[in-house]
Amino acid sequence: MRTIFWDYQEDQLKMIDQRRLPEELVIYSCQTSEQCAEAIRTMVIRGAPAIGVCGAFGLALAARRCSKDEPGEIIKELEKAFFTLQQCRPTAINLIRGLTKIMDEIKNQYRQDKSLKDFILEKAQQMADEDVRINKQMAEIGALLINDGDTIIHHCNTGALATVDWGTALGVIRTAHEQGKRMHLLVDETRPQLQGARLTAWELEQYGIEYEIISDNMAGHFLQTGKVNKVLFGADRVAANGDVVNKIGSYMLALAAKDNQVPVYSVVPTSSFDLNCKTGKEIPIEERNQDEVLDISLFGNRAAPKNAKARNPAFDVTSNKLISAIITEKGIIYPPYNKNISDIVDA
Amino acid sequence: MRTIFWDYQEDQLKMIDQRRLPEELVIYSCQTSEQCAEAIRTMVIRGAPAIGVCGAFGLALAARRCSKDEPGEIIKELEKAFFTLQQCRPTAINLIRGLTKIMDEIKNQYRQDKSLKDFILEKAQQMADEDVRINKQMAEIGALLINDGDTIIHHCNTGALATVDWGTALGVIRTAHEQGKRMHLLVDETRPQLQGARLTAWELEQYGIEYEIISDNMAGHFLQTGKVNKVLFGADRVAANGDVVNKIGSYMLALAAKDNQVPVYSVVPTSSFDLNCKTGKEIPIEERNQDEVLDISLFGNRAAPKNAKARNPAFDVTSNKLISAIITEKGIIYPPYNKNISDIVDA
Repeated sequence: MRTIFWDYQEDQLKMIDQRRLPEELVIYSCQTSEQCAEAIRTMVIRGAPAIGVCGAFGLALAARRCSKDEPGEIIKELEKAFFTLQQCRPTAINLIRGLTKIMDEIKNQYRQDKSLKDFILEKAQQMADEDVRINKQMAEIGALLINDGDTIIHHCNTGALATVDWGTALGVIRTAHEQGKRMHLLVDETRPQLQGARLTAWELEQYGIEYEIISDNMAGHFLQTGKVNKVLFGADRVAANGDVVNKIGSYMLALAAKDNQVPVYSVVPTSSFDLNCKTGKEIPIEERNQDEVLDISLFGNRAAPKNAKARNPAFDVTSNKLISAIITEKGIIYPPYNKNISDIVDA
Repeated sequence: MRTIFWDYQEDQLKMIDQRRLPEELVIYSCQTSEQCAEAIRTMVIRGAPAIGVCGAFGLALAARRCSKDEPGEIIKELEKAFFTLQQCRPTAINLIRGLTKIMDEIKNQYRQDKSLKDFILEKAQQMADEDVRINKQMAEIGALLINDGDTIIHHCNTGALATVDWGTALGVIRTAHEQGKRMHLLVDETRPQLQGARLTAWELEQYGIEYEIISDNMAGHFLQTGKVNKVLFGADRVAANGDVVNKIGSYMLALAAKDNQVPVYSVVPTSSFDLNCKTGKEIPIEERNQDEVLDISLFGNRAAPKNAKARNPAFDVTSNKLISAIITEKGIIYPPYNKNISDIVDA
């Protein structure tokens, strides 16, 4: 089963409800583009590649729920849906890029020889299939860097659940695992939403890969022991200079890795690069609701005082100087990034 | 009310049950040294200075519950209690030091002119009073470094609850607050036990100091914004070279501060220095039960899969190169630490 897929029988979008994992595997259905937007906002679905494809399917929903069949009427609905969807999450470039790609394809490729409603769904489906293909290609390339016996620290969730299927950084680990390489994963729990403890741990159990959960602030200690060989994470957006914007905590993890001479790899499709941003500082950092930090319980007891306030930036910038290499579906990019990224990634 | 105190009417030890905060303020009573050991192990009470004093009172309990009055019989009970108590938590030097101090005082000062049971209680009580005096002195010195308008990141809990009263790093902040300096605190929640979100937040509400909770992995992001002026934390043990062993996560926080040229101060009484340890690597790091990491719920849902495993080191080593200064009750120690620590701290 894919993380996100079109149900052709029911003509609607379906996805795994990631808020309910690991307790239960529940499928969430979207009949309208508004429901799709809500799913992105509330993190029913998350992960840069997954929300990019989700946006594209959201446009398909908008088109297919339009009561008229004339392209002009459908386009009006698409523009409304585009506006709503693109605001859902600002940091990953994939969402706006997925939406724009569909709109561009309508403009450049649609020939009115078939229903526009079908054309858009077809294009969204192609994007979903392409995502799986790219992930597997990236994983094959990245797995070359993994050695038998590696201990790896992994941040957030970058597996099948962050994509349509297979995964980015976790995809590399899956492929290495299928190649028979033994690994031990230290899984950053990834506060505040605990994507590591909830989603990555759940995925690793499916794949039969050995892991232990650590709280994010323990990574430095394990790096100091000399027993960690690599740090792997994904990226929500990469700037032209190789600065990596990824889930909050990536920066501190990369700093600790650098301080202990452990290589840091960001595994990311070229669709997540944004050459319009010269450095990571130009990339908007989403700040989410403080309740995601505050509504945490330990052994059943709520942690924070009732009136406590919290901050909740969802991403941070890891400076290019801390990134040993960026693994893409088109090859591994090493420093100097300014030159090497523009050689591989289309502007 | 002090965090830990002797109830002279009931002739027993009492302390705030820190596992129940901030939900409710409950007093935990210890009638025996075994109960006192259990309170330290399960973190009813925590914080290096607090558990040092708790150990001393634990010996008083052992003496007072002894059915005989002959010093020889009491000493036998003390030796048993010493053995149990000293194993409860290995990292903070204060526990073993508090226990040893009482035993030494019996050997060197007890003159049989009064009951040994009373003598020990008196010595434990002196140690408790001394802790408050030292904290306030340290706070006066440390407050000199705090400026009006500072934004400060604070890790773990170092307040009244980590000591007998007043606090170490948080004591500095309290004193600066009483001097009229306005501060804004970013409170590291401090996984896995959430001492920041639970205890520091609760204390700051009592004192009326403005704060926001952040998850530990967010500190780097806020340090990058340029709006943080200082990082403050305590220490469980300081090596002769100035390496600071403190609550897990201190190392990554200090690294991020250094990367952004923000000073890091460790506030610690001279009783927490261990000149027998040349570097932090010689200090034992306690690893606690994995359930403290795993039994966490977000919005009421348990995070980790049922069979997940976790690691749980409770402390880490922050290299002396990341510590801008160490604030003690005898003055501020700046680098080079090897020389400057031995000038101030007794071996």
